[in-house]
Amino acid sequence: MKNWPDSIYSDGTLGFVSNMTPTLGDKVFVSVRMYKDSPVTHAFVRKVTNGAEQYIEMEKGEICNDLVYYKAEIEINEPTVKYIFVLATKDTIYYYNREGYKTYIPDYRHDFVILADHHRPDWVNGAVFYQIFPERFWNGDKENDVRTGEYEYNGKKSIRMDNWNEVPLSPDKGRAVDFYGGDLRGIKEKIPYLKELGVTAIYLNPIFTAYSTHKYDCIDYFHVDPHFGGDEALAELSEALHENDMKLVLDISINHTGIMHPWTKEKENLYFKNPDGSLKGWAGFSSLPVLDYRNEELRKIIYKDEDSVLRKWLKPPYNIDGWRFDVADVLARNDDVQLADEVWKEVCSAIRQEKEDAIIIGEHWADCNEYLQGDLWNTPMNYYGYGRIIRQFAGLPELFISRCEPLAAVDYQMTAKDVVNRTNDHYNTLPQVIADCQMNLYDSHDVPRVHNYECISFEKWKLVATSQLLFTGIPCIYYGDELGIDGYVEHDAGFRYPMCWDRDDDVSRKHFKVYKTITGLRREKKAFAEGGRKVLFADGRILVVARFFKDEMYLGILSMEDKSRTIRIPVWEIGAAQPASDKDKFGDSIKWSVDDGDLIVEVPAYASYIFEVK
Amino acid sequence: MKNWPDSIYSDGTLGFVSNMTPTLGDKVFVSVRMYKDSPVTHAFVRKVTNGAEQYIEMEKGEICNDLVYYKAEIEINEPTVKYIFVLATKDTIYYYNREGYKTYIPDYRHDFVILADHHRPDWVNGAVFYQIFPERFWNGDKENDVRTGEYEYNGKKSIRMDNWNEVPLSPDKGRAVDFYGGDLRGIKEKIPYLKELGVTAIYLNPIFTAYSTHKYDCIDYFHVDPHFGGDEALAELSEALHENDMKLVLDISINHTGIMHPWTKEKENLYFKNPDGSLKGWAGFSSLPVLDYRNEELRKIIYKDEDSVLRKWLKPPYNIDGWRFDVADVLARNDDVQLADEVWKEVCSAIRQEKEDAIIIGEHWADCNEYLQGDLWNTPMNYYGYGRIIRQFAGLPELFISRCEPLAAVDYQMTAKDVVNRTNDHYNTLPQVIADCQMNLYDSHDVPRVHNYECISFEKWKLVATSQLLFTGIPCIYYGDELGIDGYVEHDAGFRYPMCWDRDDDVSRKHFKVYKTITGLRREKKAFAEGGRKVLFADGRILVVARFFKDEMYLGILSMEDKSRTIRIPVWEIGAAQPASDKDKFGDSIKWSVDDGDLIVEVPAYASYIFEVK
Repeated sequence: MKNWPDSIYSDGTLGFVSNMTPTLGDKVFVSVRMYKDSPVTHAFVRKVTNGAEQYIEMEKGEICNDLVYYKAEIEINEPTVKYIFVLATKDTIYYYNREGYKTYIPDYRHDFVILADHHRPDWVNGAVFYQIFPERFWNGDKENDVRTGEYEYNGKKSIRMDNWNEVPLSPDKGRAVDFYGGDLRGIKEKIPYLKELGVTAIYLNPIFTAYSTHKYDCIDYFHVDPHFGGDEALAELSEALHENDMKLVLDISINHTGIMHPWTKEKENLYFKNPDGSLKGWAGFSSLPVLDYRNEELRKIIYKDEDSVLRKWLKPPYNIDGWRFDVADVLARNDDVQLADEVWKEVCSAIRQEKEDAIIIGEHWADCNEYLQGDLWNTPMNYYGYGRIIRQFAGLPELFISRCEPLAAVDYQMTAKDVVNRTNDHYNTLPQVIADCQMNLYDSHDVPRVHNYECISFEKWKLVATSQLLFTGIPCIYYGDELGIDGYVEHDAGFRYPMCWDRDDDVSRKHFKVYKTITGLRREKKAFAEGGRKVLFADGRILVVARFFKDEMYLGILSMEDKSRTIRIPVWEIGAAQPASDKDKFGDSIKWSVDDGDLIVEVPAYASYIFEVK
Repeated sequence: MKNWPDSIYSDGTLGFVSNMTPTLGDKVFVSVRMYKDSPVTHAFVRKVTNGAEQYIEMEKGEICNDLVYYKAEIEINEPTVKYIFVLATKDTIYYYNREGYKTYIPDYRHDFVILADHHRPDWVNGAVFYQIFPERFWNGDKENDVRTGEYEYNGKKSIRMDNWNEVPLSPDKGRAVDFYGGDLRGIKEKIPYLKELGVTAIYLNPIFTAYSTHKYDCIDYFHVDPHFGGDEALAELSEALHENDMKLVLDISINHTGIMHPWTKEKENLYFKNPDGSLKGWAGFSSLPVLDYRNEELRKIIYKDEDSVLRKWLKPPYNIDGWRFDVADVLARNDDVQLADEVWKEVCSAIRQEKEDAIIIGEHWADCNEYLQGDLWNTPMNYYGYGRIIRQFAGLPELFISRCEPLAAVDYQMTAKDVVNRTNDHYNTLPQVIADCQMNLYDSHDVPRVHNYECISFEKWKLVATSQLLFTGIPCIYYGDELGIDGYVEHDAGFRYPMCWDRDDDVSRKHFKVYKTITGLRREKKAFAEGGRKVLFADGRILVVARFFKDEMYLGILSMEDKSRTIRIPVWEIGAAQPASDKDKFGDSIKWSVDDGDLIVEVPAYASYIFEVK
């Protein structure tokens, strides 16, 4: 039985909006579609114009794949234009917003949003990120390696590890004092590999001068660490990447410096103080003193001056394409001092002044909707709306909850419905131009790699990797995941192993093949590059998501059920009827039939499929 | 069957927060309760502190009425403190926020909120507003009456109506040019009546000099209209009201003046212009030219200067207790000019500088959550979260939707569930100190009076009036509703009849008695004055709401069903068992029984009950 309201659909993509990045004063067509036999008598766009509601009647247009489209023109009269669709039948009015349809007048929070004069980085369409922890990627220049005992970090002396490949790594190895020798020339050498993998943008963990391997304890924001090759190596890497059509994003903590930073002696007033006068440390770590943005001099150094930190690296010869900000959640917040909104506005506008299509990524693991309305970040490290969710769905400990022992002990199996609920909490509040920028990662330098957990089979890992195509935004591959790199889950040393360049076995080949398929679909198919998204099924532990762009339609099926299950997918809702082929994009066979507009699929335990439908 | 999670409850009232208006740096106890036999093993407060999440374990405390309370102390370290409750059982974690409980990690939007250093007007607890349209209330000074032909409004000459009581009012009578003679001395004379009714605060439609009866077309913000008695009459009224423990709120449009305002000639640059150079009118009415807040001089005149408009009337000898702002939704918004946030911040802080506990009311009929987070308004005219909803529930046309003909034609009967959905959209985003200030009105000078509709029986009207006790905030009585005043629904003239002072019949006595009961409960019972609120039943067209403060518990039942229906109310969820008496507060008998913790009530068609439970 077709319940027609389930077919109501619109979004902010080019499938339903004639111009996603209009100029103030432009006119834009918006449309909504639904099953052709719906009892709708009138359709309206309800727009909020200068604070007041306005109803604009829509015109009934073409029928395509059994779906009828209604269309209306609206004026982008103000910087943020908000609208919903209002559909009348004889006895009910349906209000359709980013949350779906309701029979009651909804709040404005989930209105569709079009931003005027917004500059979305064009290159995010079809982009694939690759995150590199530079010290552990590839040693391109042995001359610049850290020497054993060269310096000290947190009371431990630096160790040059020459035997990474000889001894199995243990929880005692690979910490912030154990240097592998990775550097920027090493990354440049590996560009052909990255191209082969299908990567289009690189995100590097910090590279500015610091004594640790991770370099979040910066002592000089104005220079690339000499052990990574210095400023010149960055200019060379940037040029080489751009020649290969790849973007480059750098990581920085402007929230805190390392305790060895000369400012801690020379410019103490740049830092927050504890009641006893000592420098306040991030999360209580005295080695990471926190910068105080009440100080105008600091703002000048970091982002206001022409030669400020954030501007310097966006300019030639470095020409980076964006910034990733460490611990962005806590920046400029200290009890009575709450300057986050002001400082981020200044930071983001300084960056966009230098480079209109730079990407701004804030490290935030929780609900950061307030930063994602168009004027501030393009994306968080999307743990909240993607990574935390998909990891928990795969059976791993929830990254936040598991920090609290009694909560970690709860034996909860996440349902597909709760995946949808959490995903919606995030995505349903984002303008489409922001949703398209979401940096969807599941692994990183800060979390145990999914495939390193004992409970994660190859199938489960493949399900997690595949899910990157089913969430709007940019898949991000953490270096080595594409080869099933070794590691352990107990300590961050286990997530930062040197890249396994010499690995070429069944496991690594299987992993690599999965990612080649994913990056290929992401780059070549508009449904994944810039398409819409609709959940078609969420029951028990099976999730089915459709991605589509105009006539191009794909389904993704993710099952965490431990046995085979036959499910009914209402593909009629998106105007589809059946798979385009009996094999999915990974080469797996699909057992299917159709009934009354639904697609019936037998889904094996822990299966993950991606296939075209027509 | 008791589903224990349904009993989880907390809110921002003194029943669950030890201090609703703490100072920055204070510590506050927060608590959550649930059924005593719940399988909860650990309870936490999850607080967001300077941008980062923190888990604070709660202590299991007293059991009261079969409910167990968990408690924890949190620090009010920053201006806005956000928290939720996290409850662990063996196999599920429950996250409890302002929306209720979920089994998945929720967004931050519905976190409980405590504001530091917030000044809620104390007097809102138990307050009852009374809205007066001054020109139509009582003629206390015949010397200052408008003369026929004295002036013109919208091309019509003023008419002094001496025969209001002699001829039945028709749609041709009582418009903005027909003067009854009401004035401020008239209001002062009626203070004993207002006290008898149980009113504690007066809201007056505009009184500053203007040529219409409604005076939204102001020509002088600095003087009370001479026909209302001039400035002196206001000082006298204010003094008399305060002597009688009543507050006084004035109405003003700082969005537009009347076209006859001298500024339109002398200071044209204070106004927005149309492309042709003429003054832009509010909603297209050229007679109401819109002020342009890009102009600093305007900001000075209206609220910045010591003797600015908004400040003048807050100071002695006028001493008003707050401002109601006309068409506040559109203020300082004009396409590329979007200064609402900035201007409202300045306006509200100017007002609170003058009078810390002033109430600020914005006229906004739709979702205005952004204005209601503590720094701007205390309340809108709460049509969105109350008035529009309850009117539609009572079977009247939805105030916004019905403006659009094809939507008005839809024959929709609003369900109790949709009442709850819409109410939640509003209330679940408000800090408790703001929720307590909500000005809950169903009639006003701008909407047809509910009881003037043919389809509204006395019972249905009583249901609507009673509902004012069941929504958190301040009931507002529109003058004359308490006597069932005559009128008609087709035009605003019909909602602005002269007050029916000579009316003393069965109908007026029945209406008055209902309101005496409502105002008495609101003022004398903490459950209504400052209590919590929980919906216990919403099915078909019956809604049951509990109001409670510690041990004091009341139920309200509202039925729009057209026949009698027996319902099960899970009163165990709030720790209650049965009615305290067989009669409700209006003197009506209740037919009830109990079963397994539920209260079973036979609810007659269109019934409205308020009764204590224990």
